[in-house]
Amino acid sequence: MTIAHKLSAKELAVTSAALLAELRARRPLVQAVTNFVSMDVAANALLALGASPAMVHAPEEAEDFGAISNALVVNIGTLSQSWIVGMEAAAAVAQKLGRPWVLDPVGVGATRFRDAAVDRLLQFEPAVIRGNASEILSVARIAGLSEDAAAPKGVDSAHGTDVARASALALARSRKCIVAATGAVDLITDGERTIELANGSPLMAKVTALGCALSGIVAAFAALSEDRFVATAAAIAIYGVAGEMAGELADRPGAFRVAFIDMLDAIGPEDIARRLKVV
Amino acid sequence: MTIAHKLSAKELAVTSAALLAELRARRPLVQAVTNFVSMDVAANALLALGASPAMVHAPEEAEDFGAISNALVVNIGTLSQSWIVGMEAAAAVAQKLGRPWVLDPVGVGATRFRDAAVDRLLQFEPAVIRGNASEILSVARIAGLSEDAAAPKGVDSAHGTDVARASALALARSRKCIVAATGAVDLITDGERTIELANGSPLMAKVTALGCALSGIVAAFAALSEDRFVATAAAIAIYGVAGEMAGELADRPGAFRVAFIDMLDAIGPEDIARRLKVV
Amino acid sequence: MTIAHKLSAKELAVTSAALLAELRARRPLVQAVTNFVSMDVAANALLALGASPAMVHAPEEAEDFGAISNALVVNIGTLSQSWIVGMEAAAAVAQKLGRPWVLDPVGVGATRFRDAAVDRLLQFEPAVIRGNASEILSVARIAGLSEDAAAPKGVDSAHGTDVARASALALARSRKCIVAATGAVDLITDGERTIELANGSPLMAKVTALGCALSGIVAAFAALSEDRFVATAAAIAIYGVAGEMAGELADRPGAFRVAFIDMLDAIGPEDIARRLKVV
Repeated sequence: MTIAHKLSAKELAVTSAALLAELRARRPLVQAVTNFVSMDVAANALLALGASPAMVHAPEEAEDFGAISNALVVNIGTLSQSWIVGMEAAAAVAQKLGRPWVLDPVGVGATRFRDAAVDRLLQFEPAVIRGNASEILSVARIAGLSEDAAAPKGVDSAHGTDVARASALALARSRKCIVAATGAVDLITDGERTIELANGSPLMAKVTALGCALSGIVAAFAALSEDRFVATAAAIAIYGVAGEMAGELADRPGAFRVAFIDMLDAIGPEDIARRLKVV
Repeated sequence: MTIAHKLSAKELAVTSAALLAELRARRPLVQAVTNFVSMDVAANALLALGASPAMVHAPEEAEDFGAISNALVVNIGTLSQSWIVGMEAAAAVAQKLGRPWVLDPVGVGATRFRDAAVDRLLQFEPAVIRGNASEILSVARIAGLSEDAAAPKGVDSAHGTDVARASALALARSRKCIVAATGAVDLITDGERTIELANGSPLMAKVTALGCALSGIVAAFAALSEDRFVATAAAIAIYGVAGEMAGELADRPGAFRVAFIDMLDAIGPEDIARRLKVV
Repeated sequence: MTIAHKLSAKELAVTSAALLAELRARRPLVQAVTNFVSMDVAANALLALGASPAMVHAPEEAEDFGAISNALVVNIGTLSQSWIVGMEAAAAVAQKLGRPWVLDPVGVGATRFRDAAVDRLLQFEPAVIRGNASEILSVARIAGLSEDAAAPKGVDSAHGTDVARASALALARSRKCIVAATGAVDLITDGERTIELANGSPLMAKVTALGCALSGIVAAFAALSEDRFVATAAAIAIYGVAGEMAGELADRPGAFRVAFIDMLDAIGPEDIARRLKVV
């Protein structure tokens, strides 16, 4: 077992800037099987940053669309039985083709229906699992790794990121994937390497579906690098920095959302270098 | 039969401010089975005001989610057969658990499919029915209380609130619920008590789904008080005042929507006290 | 065969202004069977301009709602089997009643599922087909008119409008409908008459679903004039001019979207007369 090198803020800033430039040049096509609440803001966030979103969820076209897309995000926010079929079909194609896919287990732990859906989706080997702390605790429980997951309150996290650390690491090791528990502090781990970021704005929690939109952006970055730990950290770093920039332009959630989309479009290497905070 | 005390603007302002403070402290979890058009703005309106929205519609999770949520809104805007199943399941759980739920009968009267859905949903005893005047007329007709409901034009009201007064009162009495017919003037009644509010902005009708978002906010307030008449009036009062505040900041619908979300976040007791208009 | 008269910028500006005034006076009810991503922005764009949108997709209410609506738009963006049933039901009613309907074949060519859906929808005789150049190429191929349609990249166009010219004309002639291939330059043709417009803003491609929203607006205009070529050109002209106006007010996609909705509300005859660019 190697001692994991600790990624510094400076290193991550340089890598994030390079990946962002590549994203804007290559415009990865991100297929999203996502919830109804996030459709608009997730597509706009991906477009503003420079990627190409496509909300495509029918099982009948999973194979054809998987063949042309560069990454996939599956988000269970507004779950239903018919959508689960589409989620599994899309995830299965991604797994088969070796395309990275991100699981966003919105509200897992709140209902047995969600737990069962996540349990099934995990078998398709997501490259990244991104959720709030409560959700990561619940996924770890579903994966048989802990018993201490408290029931979350709806779709908002009832826990700080810190509480999810052990579960996140265990989940990453067990499922050989990246786990990101995001919140005021974002924890990203591959089970060996761990990094914690502290950018963003408190207003991000006052705008719906910004976590869902982040999962789409993580998918876009995962398409750009085989090192999915670094790709995930870069996506979350850029998102947090853009949120921080927007928080300086707007002090309420309506204006913040507009400014945030603008900052995803505006953000450049200097912003990342100057602002990125690694804890 | 008691003579209903007429709620004054001052009394309603004080109660509204107290309920708003309680909402922001307790952050009620509002389950929304709502239409696709309103998902984004309804979730953002609830978040901005201080509640916790969750768009959850699958019948399979109605029981689990009903057990943790504080209120429910059912909105038939983008109706389909599979969603009706989820609506009925959620409403049945709310009825069983004694949780308040709000029916927003979007477009009822326009198609027999909608009329039949509303007819079925009414059996689950909504605490509040909120719609525009045309919709309230149609619901009263479906409930067997009048014959004079003209067909509405699509989902926008073809009638002023005044026309719906008799139907609203009859419906409230017959179904033992609160009925709110909102528009330029908002009429709220429990069949005995009636109050009419006159805040808001003409721009509210130029932004889609602001009525739907209001229904979610009524549900949040209904979770806070056993007196559902006062809770509904408070929710509509606050919403109208926030709309009026936004109307002073923006003069067109794009900017108005942003300002309105901001004002739901900003609104405080003094705004309500100073601006609330009871007709 | 008559020599088609070439519509001048001045003529189109005058007609567009007259149709816009009529739209605001009559407020046509536009039924939209559209994708989840576009629901919010398409409804708000129609409302801001002055029409009355209604997102209604259930096959069970196709007949009742078709009877009261003035036009229909069918958009296959977030396609699924159950929605195809609703699309066909709505299109069949429009065909039967002689109501104009607009087909927006989002992402056609990307999957066989989409191609098959478009093939079936074409039989209901859309009055207008509006898409980006890649989509128009694919529809022409599906209609048996060409073999040279390259696979598009997701839902964004991989081609300039120019490439779709021959396919657009052939499709319009063959299907006796209006074909509009929109992009940096918008090409509108009925197979005889052709006009190209060059308004808009590069930011329109950075906001999701603005093409979808345009299709709804084309439907609203198609309800106002038997000359669907002129109606389509007017809708696209107004939309492009509003986009250009918004592009002078905002330089990033978040603020641009807000400004664009505002400009759809603000636009008047002088804006159209002064700015309209016919190539």
